[in-house]
Amino acid sequence: MRSIKRLGLTLISLLLMNQVLTAQTISSPNGNVEMTFKIESKGIPTYSVNYKKKPVVLPSRLGLELAKDKHASKGFNETDLLEGFSVTNTQTSTFDETWEPVWGETSTIRNHYNELAVTLTQAKEKRNIIIRFRVYDDGVGFRYEFPQQKELNYFLIKEERTEFAMAGDHTAWWLPGDYDTQEQETQQTKLSGIRERMKQAVNWGNSSVAVFSETGVQTSLQMKTDDGLYINIHEAACLDYATMHLELVDKETTHLADKLGGGSNQYTPNPQPSNYPLPAPYTFISHLTPDATGLKGCMQTPCNTPWRTVMVSDDARDMLSSNLILNLNEPCKIEDTSWIHPTKYCGVWWEMIVGKSNWHYTDDFPSIYIDKVDWKSVKPHGRHAANNEKVRRYIDFAAENGLDQILVEGWNIGWEDWANMWKRDVFDFVTPYPDFDIKALNDYAHSKGVKLMMHHETSSSTQNYERHIKEAYELMNKYGYDAVKTGYVGDIIPRGDHHYSQSMNNHYMYVIKEAAKHHIMVNGHEAVRPTGICRTYPNLVGNESARGTEYEAFGGSRPDHTVILPFTRLQGGPMDYTPGILETQLKTWSDNPNYVHTTLVGQLALYVTMYSPLQMAADLPENYAKFMDAFQFIKDVACDWSESIYLEAEPADYITVARKAKGTDNWFIGGKCDENGHKSVIKLDFLDKGRKYECTIYADAKDADYEKNPKAYTITKKTVKAGQTLKLTEARGGGFAISLIAK
Amino acid sequence: MRSIKRLGLTLISLLLMNQVLTAQTISSPNGNVEMTFKIESKGIPTYSVNYKKKPVVLPSRLGLELAKDKHASKGFNETDLLEGFSVTNTQTSTFDETWEPVWGETSTIRNHYNELAVTLTQAKEKRNIIIRFRVYDDGVGFRYEFPQQKELNYFLIKEERTEFAMAGDHTAWWLPGDYDTQEQETQQTKLSGIRERMKQAVNWGNSSVAVFSETGVQTSLQMKTDDGLYINIHEAACLDYATMHLELVDKETTHLADKLGGGSNQYTPNPQPSNYPLPAPYTFISHLTPDATGLKGCMQTPCNTPWRTVMVSDDARDMLSSNLILNLNEPCKIEDTSWIHPTKYCGVWWEMIVGKSNWHYTDDFPSIYIDKVDWKSVKPHGRHAANNEKVRRYIDFAAENGLDQILVEGWNIGWEDWANMWKRDVFDFVTPYPDFDIKALNDYAHSKGVKLMMHHETSSSTQNYERHIKEAYELMNKYGYDAVKTGYVGDIIPRGDHHYSQSMNNHYMYVIKEAAKHHIMVNGHEAVRPTGICRTYPNLVGNESARGTEYEAFGGSRPDHTVILPFTRLQGGPMDYTPGILETQLKTWSDNPNYVHTTLVGQLALYVTMYSPLQMAADLPENYAKFMDAFQFIKDVACDWSESIYLEAEPADYITVARKAKGTDNWFIGGKCDENGHKSVIKLDFLDKGRKYECTIYADAKDADYEKNPKAYTITKKTVKAGQTLKLTEARGGGFAISLIAK
Repeated sequence: MRSIKRLGLTLISLLLMNQVLTAQTISSPNGNVEMTFKIESKGIPTYSVNYKKKPVVLPSRLGLELAKDKHASKGFNETDLLEGFSVTNTQTSTFDETWEPVWGETSTIRNHYNELAVTLTQAKEKRNIIIRFRVYDDGVGFRYEFPQQKELNYFLIKEERTEFAMAGDHTAWWLPGDYDTQEQETQQTKLSGIRERMKQAVNWGNSSVAVFSETGVQTSLQMKTDDGLYINIHEAACLDYATMHLELVDKETTHLADKLGGGSNQYTPNPQPSNYPLPAPYTFISHLTPDATGLKGCMQTPCNTPWRTVMVSDDARDMLSSNLILNLNEPCKIEDTSWIHPTKYCGVWWEMIVGKSNWHYTDDFPSIYIDKVDWKSVKPHGRHAANNEKVRRYIDFAAENGLDQILVEGWNIGWEDWANMWKRDVFDFVTPYPDFDIKALNDYAHSKGVKLMMHHETSSSTQNYERHIKEAYELMNKYGYDAVKTGYVGDIIPRGDHHYSQSMNNHYMYVIKEAAKHHIMVNGHEAVRPTGICRTYPNLVGNESARGTEYEAFGGSRPDHTVILPFTRLQGGPMDYTPGILETQLKTWSDNPNYVHTTLVGQLALYVTMYSPLQMAADLPENYAKFMDAFQFIKDVACDWSESIYLEAEPADYITVARKAKGTDNWFIGGKCDENGHKSVIKLDFLDKGRKYECTIYADAKDADYEKNPKAYTITKKTVKAGQTLKLTEARGGGFAISLIAK
Repeated sequence: MRSIKRLGLTLISLLLMNQVLTAQTISSPNGNVEMTFKIESKGIPTYSVNYKKKPVVLPSRLGLELAKDKHASKGFNETDLLEGFSVTNTQTSTFDETWEPVWGETSTIRNHYNELAVTLTQAKEKRNIIIRFRVYDDGVGFRYEFPQQKELNYFLIKEERTEFAMAGDHTAWWLPGDYDTQEQETQQTKLSGIRERMKQAVNWGNSSVAVFSETGVQTSLQMKTDDGLYINIHEAACLDYATMHLELVDKETTHLADKLGGGSNQYTPNPQPSNYPLPAPYTFISHLTPDATGLKGCMQTPCNTPWRTVMVSDDARDMLSSNLILNLNEPCKIEDTSWIHPTKYCGVWWEMIVGKSNWHYTDDFPSIYIDKVDWKSVKPHGRHAANNEKVRRYIDFAAENGLDQILVEGWNIGWEDWANMWKRDVFDFVTPYPDFDIKALNDYAHSKGVKLMMHHETSSSTQNYERHIKEAYELMNKYGYDAVKTGYVGDIIPRGDHHYSQSMNNHYMYVIKEAAKHHIMVNGHEAVRPTGICRTYPNLVGNESARGTEYEAFGGSRPDHTVILPFTRLQGGPMDYTPGILETQLKTWSDNPNYVHTTLVGQLALYVTMYSPLQMAADLPENYAKFMDAFQFIKDVACDWSESIYLEAEPADYITVARKAKGTDNWFIGGKCDENGHKSVIKLDFLDKGRKYECTIYADAKDADYEKNPKAYTITKKTVKAGQTLKLTEARGGGFAISLIAK
């Protein structure tokens, strides 16, 4: 991710000491996006955003409510950062730089914005803060900065009160705001319909559910206005700060516990200060994830909040091609990135998710202490998946089919009673079950030119993971692992903390940094949704942090799920979605009655439409054996790209994207649609002029249908060249996948 | 601590299946102590204790209240363990063994008790628990045991409800129950006076104060009955379980917040269940330290509670010589203990406590991030104590005077803003300040035959300490440190946790075990009060865990403080009290107006009366230079013993003890008294008959007085032999110290 050229850096300082500005507007480089900053009466800072003169964010207040602390006398400042501000300095500047990601959708990324930094002073408190705005052609990022100063060295955040006042009753694709899970299905309602939909939107079956409000939603939040603007609110570079939710606050806001029936999993929203009326009918206000005491943050200056991002365009494709969130993150901090690489992998995983085999080894005990079990003398139950024989088969399969790695879950002791038991010492991350010969299997994999992928389920006992992490990573180094999938199922230990709190966000970064020291790539599951941190730490090659393919075995996800995720979850970074379930009907090989809510070809399309440098071929080798012609696409498709061109996009309807494989002249095109099917016309004007390409089209058969006939597909080969047109028909829940191999 | 002989082990099993016992009594080996177990109506288990037929504990209930958990469906059993019990098995046995501590007051310890183990069954719940009683000649220990079983694998403790019903309105020496501090001055009241005294007993100036009840007190709690019985309640082997407080519960019990004025530091007591009347007017009930969510414990069977101990005698000296708490702990788990040794040390410490110099290095910053400061370029403020020149002087001083080690506080970066700022990353434990040359100083110390002692103040940021602990101990190994003083000043991070919770007690053990792996001895300050764990992990050579000598610089401690501590705090293990302040008037060398509340000779006496294998000569070398004749006793006195004979004792009045230095025939005698003075007549009948001893008596001068004339002392030398008598007069706040060197 080194910077390759700095096209220009202009700094225009406007020193306006002691002068109150009524308003200041800054535009994006092409002028489409305008941000206006203004101090309202009582010294309240506000901002608003327009796109091509249309309102995107109506005037909205900025500020933070601070908490009281018993150590106040020691230097904590407790006066709220909400009002009494005057502008004492503004600086504007332009930035334009192009940088190279270690991996990504494109080989270079342009970071081009105009910046306004406003110094705000609370004269009475003798305190300054800075609000920094960066205005891009596809949106705005802004953050609060807290310089080190005599009267502001430490403070505690009761709540961040950043408003996002929407200009109308937009259509929104949202997940319930929740401190501990983000694996719900996306809801599509008008903003005014969130409250009514909330109860059914919450995944009450998830043990970790911790919703906090009837109108609280997660970011990234994708919206569409009635007049065709696409607006997305998220955050960038959330580091050692609590993850933000958005709460639609209006007169109806009441305690959730009253409405939803009470119970330990439910929380009450922060009431608005009574002297703090809302500016517009559809106003979101930030709601941070609390720690065990209800506090939202412990801060020491100099410091800053994450960037709050508002992406906007009148073309949905711009939502997908935007690099605004990556650009707002710091450049790469890992000097030698040679050990970081895109990875295609298979794994001992899906058969356990489906319920045919197990992570754990024995049924001898109702509960275990891992250090008190003589593992060699226990009776295996016979369904332990991570055994030598099976792992060898997966190694053979990976080696034969050009996959790089083999994930093996359930290799280590502790799975007998790992989840939701408030067990601190649940795993040690270094001791294999007796039927997993860690040395022999790694040696065997390496002899075949592939690697095993490590698995560290923490059971959310983060203290335990941190106690063992160095030994665990040393073990990985010893045996030649270079990637780990981590997991955070269940409630956080230490008790009372939440998956997306400041301390947990710090924990995830601690893991990423420790891994980097050991040259290990991290794929964090159930960890916080990403916010572009992979620019700074590209060894964070993936996250789950949303509803993945596993839910197809738990009852299914709607067909539109994967044509929403790129607009929402993927804004912050790649998802380890684990596609490739070609045997969509699980009952054909297991007792699981569920089926995948796509066609077989729809599964292939995901390798292109759901960008990730980490792609799993998630189905079983024996299932791929039934569809080897279709599996060929999974073998062929790249997972690192020099160019990506979004050809068509509409949230929850369809996405069509063409990508050029990095270091080659080959292209891959994927199209995916919802339950209504879709017809695509693709003009191949992005191909090299005059060059011929061997084109293989994996398409839904005419009568294909994700429910009735999911595995009907056609494979067509022909030679094509630039300028030609391809017409594709996607079935209900289907898609297509195309490889274009340069001749 | 290996077992040297097993005198006898008799096991008498009384299998009484399905038969309800009305009562069963078990006596101590000499018959003085009797414990009666009985199932009361509704199946409530109770116990009572007599001493020489006098009631010590009236019939008191036993049981635990369990908490509800949202994961109840997953195997947590939530029915209280309070009633519905019947006795389904009882086993009695006798145990008599003598073992050798690695260090201690005596070279061998006899562990002799009669045991009753009662299996209690809740038929409806199909659950069993065991209550195990061990009856010693000087008291009783009992604990709850939870065998692994189908219907009891995991449970959460809402509160332990162990009662201790006292037979009268005893005199008690108590500290306010508090989740985060134990550094108050001891209160002496009748039990009926606790409530009235509470408000003034709380040390409101301590930033960590977290009192929970108007009648909550800490253990070890020393009492005396009107008819001369001494009773002490404490606990033994508190491992991965919350520390117990005692709450005197009666009709007046109300919410503390109402009475004491409210505020974030105050907690409400657990109300008694309404159907749970108290058995006697002066009944204590256990109150455990909560976690951040208010829960008292997460348990997985098989497991047990700590031992609840009731020590009793009609001779106060038996309270001090008792080994009941050590005996109830497990034998030593460290195989090679050759690296564990008693230690006499001095240190760069007292001048900082007094306020003449500082732990921190620079005043350049209002706050710091330790990894962002260029320490070599900052401006030192010039009062940094842990500098090369001063540490070399202390090394010279130690080497010249036969001290083993030199503690150096403030050697490592981070002290600029270390306390009470909710800073997680406050220290790294490996980076010295620029003026502390860690290699050169350790080399210099080793060249002189002494060692430096490491200091790890954690600022209670336990997560940070655990993240750095391995590197920190590797650094110690590298430079030849073999002992660390840890510190836990301020509030626990992660926020919401408390110093004495289950998770923190686990943390302290994690530290002790990690230290043992690195052959490091631990002296934990502000850590939980000990419960005899040093038998099992003898590398825990000391704790503070009470009000130490430092308070003499903060305003003083009452003269009776050190004749109470051996009855209370020292029951669980040695205290790093840091005596030896011979220059009792601080203003003679500093701006500190305070004075030590003992005479000079009183300070010498503490090396004998306050048993510890770790003894500090806490005053400055330049102060010792003024009193080199008196300092001779500190040089001479041993800190490991083969015999200890308590000659006189009365809580808060006086203690006189004679000890034989291990591996020699030399004896040392110490006498310490309260503000009233004391006259001792010591018969030297414990000396070897026919042998002559060079006797040096350090005594208060006739006109000595801790307030008016503290530094007036006499030193007398004579030759004595067995059978002779010594008459000593202790001044107000004074004492005496005697060395008897065998000729």
